Amino acid sequence: MSLSYDEYLLSNRDTHLADLKTFLSFPSISALSEHKPDVKRCAEFVASHLTEIGFEHATLMPTAGNPVVYADWLHADGAPTVLVYGHYDVQPVDPLPLWKSPPFEPEIRENRIYARGATDDKGQVFMHFKAFEALFKTNGTLPVNVKFCIEGEEEIGCLHLPDFLAENREKLRADVLMISDSSILGPNQPAICYGLRGLAGLEIHVRTANTDLHSGMFGGGVPNANHALAQILASLHTPDQRVTVEGFYDKVEALTPEERDSYEKLEIDPEDIMKSLDMTALVGEPSYTYLERVWTRPTLEINGMYGGFQGEGTKTVIPCEAHAKITCRLVPNQDPREIQRLVARHVEKCAPDGAQVEVELADAGRPYVTPFEHPAIQLAAKAYEDAYGVPCAFTRMGGSIPIVEDFDKLLRIPVVMMGFGLPDENLHAPNEHFSLENFDKGIRTLCWYYLGLPNALSNPS
Amino acid sequence: MSLSYDEYLLSNRDTHLADLKTFLSFPSISALSEHKPDVKRCAEFVASHLTEIGFEHATLMPTAGNPVVYADWLHADGAPTVLVYGHYDVQPVDPLPLWKSPPFEPEIRENRIYARGATDDKGQVFMHFKAFEALFKTNGTLPVNVKFCIEGEEEIGCLHLPDFLAENREKLRADVLMISDSSILGPNQPAICYGLRGLAGLEIHVRTANTDLHSGMFGGGVPNANHALAQILASLHTPDQRVTVEGFYDKVEALTPEERDSYEKLEIDPEDIMKSLDMTALVGEPSYTYLERVWTRPTLEINGMYGGFQGEGTKTVIPCEAHAKITCRLVPNQDPREIQRLVARHVEKCAPDGAQVEVELADAGRPYVTPFEHPAIQLAAKAYEDAYGVPCAFTRMGGSIPIVEDFDKLLRIPVVMMGFGLPDENLHAPNEHFSLENFDKGIRTLCWYYLGLPNALSNPS
Repeated sequence: MSLSYDEYLLSNRDTHLADLKTFLSFPSISALSEHKPDVKRCAEFVASHLTEIGFEHATLMPTAGNPVVYADWLHADGAPTVLVYGHYDVQPVDPLPLWKSPPFEPEIRENRIYARGATDDKGQVFMHFKAFEALFKTNGTLPVNVKFCIEGEEEIGCLHLPDFLAENREKLRADVLMISDSSILGPNQPAICYGLRGLAGLEIHVRTANTDLHSGMFGGGVPNANHALAQILASLHTPDQRVTVEGFYDKVEALTPEERDSYEKLEIDPEDIMKSLDMTALVGEPSYTYLERVWTRPTLEINGMYGGFQGEGTKTVIPCEAHAKITCRLVPNQDPREIQRLVARHVEKCAPDGAQVEVELADAGRPYVTPFEHPAIQLAAKAYEDAYGVPCAFTRMGGSIPIVEDFDKLLRIPVVMMGFGLPDENLHAPNEHFSLENFDKGIRTLCWYYLGLPNALSNPS
Repeated sequence: MSLSYDEYLLSNRDTHLADLKTFLSFPSISALSEHKPDVKRCAEFVASHLTEIGFEHATLMPTAGNPVVYADWLHADGAPTVLVYGHYDVQPVDPLPLWKSPPFEPEIRENRIYARGATDDKGQVFMHFKAFEALFKTNGTLPVNVKFCIEGEEEIGCLHLPDFLAENREKLRADVLMISDSSILGPNQPAICYGLRGLAGLEIHVRTANTDLHSGMFGGGVPNANHALAQILASLHTPDQRVTVEGFYDKVEALTPEERDSYEKLEIDPEDIMKSLDMTALVGEPSYTYLERVWTRPTLEINGMYGGFQGEGTKTVIPCEAHAKITCRLVPNQDPREIQRLVARHVEKCAPDGAQVEVELADAGRPYVTPFEHPAIQLAAKAYEDAYGVPCAFTRMGGSIPIVEDFDKLLRIPVVMMGFGLPDENLHAPNEHFSLENFDKGIRTLCWYYLGLPNALSNPS
């Protein structure tokens, strides 16, 4: 072997950054229709760049919206196949005056590259391009088979990706799904996220009469929709915020001791959270730590509630309707449809006399976890450790990434979320940027990972 | 005595109705500044009409807003003094297209007079004019001393009357306050209202953090303002809607057996209320009838509550603030300020961990009751019975009339609310009208009452 990937990356860094700048200079804002041509030109750049590197079949596959860029390299006989997901579209840039350099004229300051899309997600997608390029250039081949699926509608909710995936299920078949569209915990604290909570939404509509009533004339003798709703909502939690819905926790998987150990190392000081958010107390399920509560425990949150008069001053009305919006965060193995049913049953059961309650089911997304001990996950952690020189943290995310659920449902393969962003890189905000330290380390992490993957997957732990 | 008041009223009915039409034709809409001149002209009409009848000192007394028409006749030596309150201003008329005849061109159809202000309150005020006129014409004198206080801002909340009353307390001093600005129970069911509930308002503001939070990132670990508020609000009532606030009922006067008997005769069929309002249940304090609940029992109503997301669809937010607006209806001898303090203490005491609660005090109005057995009340009932030929009902109103409280506070005299409207006469709505049957009977009721008043008040029961 003439050249290591490390040496190759070092000696070609300037070219790579120049290419990244080109990628970042397309104003591929999917939310704004006037940028439709820019979105297309950006997709074309991705396809041609992938061809340039050595990938085959690079095409803009049409969807009902923006095209998906597909490319592959499938000549690693007997080796596993990796599907790399990412997106080339970006968020809008307003308020523009707050940007120190124009969002589509990438500028490097203090070893960070500033541009819309730098960290979300062009910069991270581009690292995979360069990792594979380095492996091609230094080995003449890749250790794994590779398929790219780089979409153009992530910032508008992946509108057409689920259909695209369903239609191209065979074409996209792989052994591992790789996503780099998230953050590590800090500049020197790499982390691999192996789980996301799911979502189950509902709306509660309470009606008590066919009209609002005057509290002077009727007060004391008729039901009040606000009273009924408050009673229903208050019945959903114990004082320490455990959900009281019957069966809610029945299918929740217990954490393994390894997971709890791993979180314990990361545990955040509650005082810090309280101080930064001006809170007088943190609340949550007893016998779980803060991180366990927000990453691994299911929740039920009243996102909105309203009934009656909200204007200035006093209005002596007995409201005849009141409403609440609720979402539950779910963890394995909770089923969103089942949880919706359980919550609906609870609400209907505890509706007080005179309250006519309607429960409307809303969003539903499955929780996702790639088993902690899966070799694709454990290898990712080792890859980080090799590049960063410190042990990698194992995390889950409290939020949902619906697209992960879509992939999981269709392909049933482990999902490796190796992010390289930092939490404060202003994604979706002015002055978005990406640390070039993580860009450099990240490409090496990926090279190390891809090189190790065939062996890891062939030796089940 | 040459002529009875009854004969006089009969033979002058056409002239009286013509005068009433003139009174009703002034568009004295206090809410609309373009009608300021009409309001003034209407006040001038009232003053000159009172002079014509035989009253003295008729003047437009200025306030910071519309003038109060004052007039008196104080020559009944040794007899009690009656202060007659009413208002010459009216509500706006929109939506105009729904009126069958123009609102300021009074028209008589089926023995009802249609015009804005017909029942609220010009028609009822005018009955006092005609009652006194009839007594003047038939007796040459009045049995009581009389003071008129007819204001022009009732429909905009009696903006300047409290100041006016405070400044003219001595001038307005009287033994009985007479108000005809309400309804009887039905065409042949006269009623005397002797009590009004008071009001105590508060707003609750709950804060849990300095910003809304993402339920994916923070859910399960931090307080939610909606949860806290729902818990507080649900704690305010027992399931059967008794108020749980400590001390809330401590000063509530028990009903007398006579009062309960009197209400029992009027008791409404709960099925009728439920049917007309599409309710599945009536709720209220056990061991009180419907009318007792809405007339004589204190209440606490959540008039409004809101927190978090109210838009379409789902937003996975943990709201950092939530708000509620509350009013209590009060009965003798509850003190609004004390009730506000009790509720505030309850709210603060039961605020859950992490909830920073602020209670803001709002409107406060004292409950008012002229003792049921007061001769001025009992006489009013007899006057109705004489004119209508059926026993009079004794009622209270669940609502508040702040002006009654103002009069009561300043003058400390019994308030006699003798209304002659009907519940369905469209006050504040298109096609407002006033039954001429009640107009005719009402004037006779008032004549009978005023003639009997000196004797009733001189013989304490």
